[in-house]
Amino acid sequence: MCIFLVAAARLRVLLASAAGALDQKNMTHTLNPASPDFAATLASALPDGIIETASAGYLEEPRGRFKGQAGVLAKPRSTEQVATLIRLAHEARVAVVPYGGGTGLVGGQVMPDGPTPLILSLERMNKISAIYPEENVLVAQAGAILADIQTAAETADRLFPLSLAAEGTARIGGNLATNAGGTGVLRYGNARDLCLGLEAVLPNGEIWNGLTRLRKNNTGYDLRHLLIGAEGTLGVITAATLKLFARPAVTGTALLVVDSPAAALALLGMARSLFGEMVSAFELIHKQGFEFLSETMPEVRQPFDTPPEWSVLIELGLAKGMDPQAGLETLFEQAAEAELVTDGVIAQSSAQAARFWTIRESIPEANKRIGSISSHDISVPLGAIPTFIAQAGETLARMGEFRINCFGHVGDGNLHYNVFAQAGRSRSDHDSQRDEIKSAVHELVDSLGGSISAEHGVGRFKVSDLERFADPAKMGAMRAIKAGLDPHGIMNPGAVLR
Amino acid sequence: MCIFLVAAARLRVLLASAAGALDQKNMTHTLNPASPDFAATLASALPDGIIETASAGYLEEPRGRFKGQAGVLAKPRSTEQVATLIRLAHEARVAVVPYGGGTGLVGGQVMPDGPTPLILSLERMNKISAIYPEENVLVAQAGAILADIQTAAETADRLFPLSLAAEGTARIGGNLATNAGGTGVLRYGNARDLCLGLEAVLPNGEIWNGLTRLRKNNTGYDLRHLLIGAEGTLGVITAATLKLFARPAVTGTALLVVDSPAAALALLGMARSLFGEMVSAFELIHKQGFEFLSETMPEVRQPFDTPPEWSVLIELGLAKGMDPQAGLETLFEQAAEAELVTDGVIAQSSAQAARFWTIRESIPEANKRIGSISSHDISVPLGAIPTFIAQAGETLARMGEFRINCFGHVGDGNLHYNVFAQAGRSRSDHDSQRDEIKSAVHELVDSLGGSISAEHGVGRFKVSDLERFADPAKMGAMRAIKAGLDPHGIMNPGAVLR
Repeated sequence: MCIFLVAAARLRVLLASAAGALDQKNMTHTLNPASPDFAATLASALPDGIIETASAGYLEEPRGRFKGQAGVLAKPRSTEQVATLIRLAHEARVAVVPYGGGTGLVGGQVMPDGPTPLILSLERMNKISAIYPEENVLVAQAGAILADIQTAAETADRLFPLSLAAEGTARIGGNLATNAGGTGVLRYGNARDLCLGLEAVLPNGEIWNGLTRLRKNNTGYDLRHLLIGAEGTLGVITAATLKLFARPAVTGTALLVVDSPAAALALLGMARSLFGEMVSAFELIHKQGFEFLSETMPEVRQPFDTPPEWSVLIELGLAKGMDPQAGLETLFEQAAEAELVTDGVIAQSSAQAARFWTIRESIPEANKRIGSISSHDISVPLGAIPTFIAQAGETLARMGEFRINCFGHVGDGNLHYNVFAQAGRSRSDHDSQRDEIKSAVHELVDSLGGSISAEHGVGRFKVSDLERFADPAKMGAMRAIKAGLDPHGIMNPGAVLR
Repeated sequence: MCIFLVAAARLRVLLASAAGALDQKNMTHTLNPASPDFAATLASALPDGIIETASAGYLEEPRGRFKGQAGVLAKPRSTEQVATLIRLAHEARVAVVPYGGGTGLVGGQVMPDGPTPLILSLERMNKISAIYPEENVLVAQAGAILADIQTAAETADRLFPLSLAAEGTARIGGNLATNAGGTGVLRYGNARDLCLGLEAVLPNGEIWNGLTRLRKNNTGYDLRHLLIGAEGTLGVITAATLKLFARPAVTGTALLVVDSPAAALALLGMARSLFGEMVSAFELIHKQGFEFLSETMPEVRQPFDTPPEWSVLIELGLAKGMDPQAGLETLFEQAAEAELVTDGVIAQSSAQAARFWTIRESIPEANKRIGSISSHDISVPLGAIPTFIAQAGETLARMGEFRINCFGHVGDGNLHYNVFAQAGRSRSDHDSQRDEIKSAVHELVDSLGGSISAEHGVGRFKVSDLERFADPAKMGAMRAIKAGLDPHGIMNPGAVLR
């Protein structure tokens, strides 16, 4: 009898751990708040000045949808300090929210509910550690500002092609954690395509040193690509090896008026048959974008007296000895003959090219000033773009009267499809329709084989959209990976996976 | 008392499952052999003609290091049939060895020990399902032959740039599972960089439909990149969406004689500053390669009377209107002035260009006919190549007298560093030195921040090398991922992870 009792007691312990495993499968974890005691534990394990209380800036995100809780803020100076922080959080079952430049658009950087987290800012780890121009490689800490990396590359007569509106504030660790896109994707790929190696702290506090400068390395599972795009839920990126490129010797920029999105795609095909990979950017602009600019930012100079229904901003980055002006003229002539373009302006100077880019890059700010009812960062297969734009327009027309600003990286199949109230009305007039609009757009995207988050990620904003539209087998695999790497669920809880 | 007994019995069940979980952590699994009963179960769940006994061809690999056990062979015709096979193997705890073209060089495709496996050949799923030339996309089943995909792309006036010696036999599923490299990597990337989407059957038999044609898709963890390079240990790739490219309008090919590997790298930098991404290939050839060709394949025509110590095969793929001949002449003149090249031949016709490529592509066969003591598929950072070649040579010279054929994708930092006996001696004379040679080369590679498997993968041949040189945190993460996705360890056991 006595023996049985002892055995039963032992078994009870194992039962508890088996039950723990089951909990992990359902992704429910009991986390503890980042209490003053926990903060004191962190402070005593680290040099002075690393631990503080999070100020308001760390609790906000650009779109104002989420408000973080005031938690403990850590500003480590080294990878080892990050490892200490994560290890202690892992042991204490405290949530960790990695924080880069804070520019993410889906709330991945703020945790609005649950036990107060440890906010881990990489801002002090902002060094560009090394440049190897002859290897086309740059090594940076995760907190390095994207624009600083671009400048460092330029100083070495190289190009780091990741380029996006927030580049003056965004940090490379965040760019990688969210697999950022932007205007350079057409030619150079997404953030993940620009990364050769990573250093990261895994959820158990171990440092993974994968900071290689290798172009080829087939030694087991690619953790780099798993952490890139995982939005801080599988570990904290602390440094990265990045690919650089030869700067195009000469560039040419034009704004060409096209009849339709289909004509824009045909024009892209024509440009590529002429210039191959040297087509650097190909951005679609709708009349609505010009009109919003006139309305909210009249200081932005516009090249057309009457804004065209559809136009594209095209940039060529050519090799030595090539003539971009002549190249764009050839393209224009061929495209005009094929009735793809009806009008256009070829930049005659770099100042004029910069003005074209200012138009494109001011559109998001103009949108913000108008205030959308619902914004969508979607992608569809290239060939489905005309269908998407036509059908989305028809669907919305059945739901009411809206202004639609559809623009973006059409060469990547990535459109920012933003829906606004009519002039004179307010977006709050349409509050009750917001979910219906979003659903209708996302369902159409899904039916065309597209993605409900092309470049911004899932964060907290699109968790339920992901659950609705993602392949169930993929969701199961994601949960298994998360449970395997982060058994206590401390890393950025609530982001990507519920 | 009675209650306790019942409770204890229940707990015993849970104890068993908790112990099972512990076993998984150590990656030890009890697998069952693919018995005649199991084969009958499979046969009854599938149409006739899918299940047979594996013939000798499925049990061999090109380098003859591993000999598979005669197991059950399945040749499914559809993804659903693959799912049925994997689900039944998962339930029966039977090992599954995915089999593509059988051309892998590290024994990933044959299982020499353990309970007999189910060999899953994708050969009947060899269709090119669709081509979207305007999207630069091709969709293929996993069993499609690489050369057939190249041809289909060419027929649509597009390029699928993955190119390697085994392309007439290798199947795209295997190319992706091993993240194949080859001669197109410099410009277009590894196999993983050429894949937009995957369909796969996961180890539990679920079908993941990730066969998108999207260029941008940030919706959760990137399973595609996790399965690519996992060598069939995390699931079976059943189909892929592949990137196509515009075919370069004109190409130019030259064999240039350089003084040293350092001069070769400087020449690459010069070529890139002239032609940017349009440098399509840059392959290093050592004198030893020419000599082995003379010895074993005298039918291969050589352009130099006396083989140069070092030379590079360079290919430019240029845009319309560019003159490759003139481009290569400019490069040669600039490089000669900078004392980087001393001699060279520019191909005057496509037939001559093809002859240069025949030289490069015959070197592996010549090596095979000579028979190496030890072969190494390594990569180092580009800047470390001269150091690696110098130090490896010195190290080996201290160990004995060898002939070294060092050649390959120098622009990717990837060298095939193969060690041979002196003329008149046999490789078996050096049997006792093989491990010592391999260790010395790999340790040098590791000390220079390199990889012990650049493009061939780990398979079964390099499992212990991986254990020795891989980052421990990475190994831990790989084991956690494997345990999470394949809890019974049925997928290609013994490959990559022990």
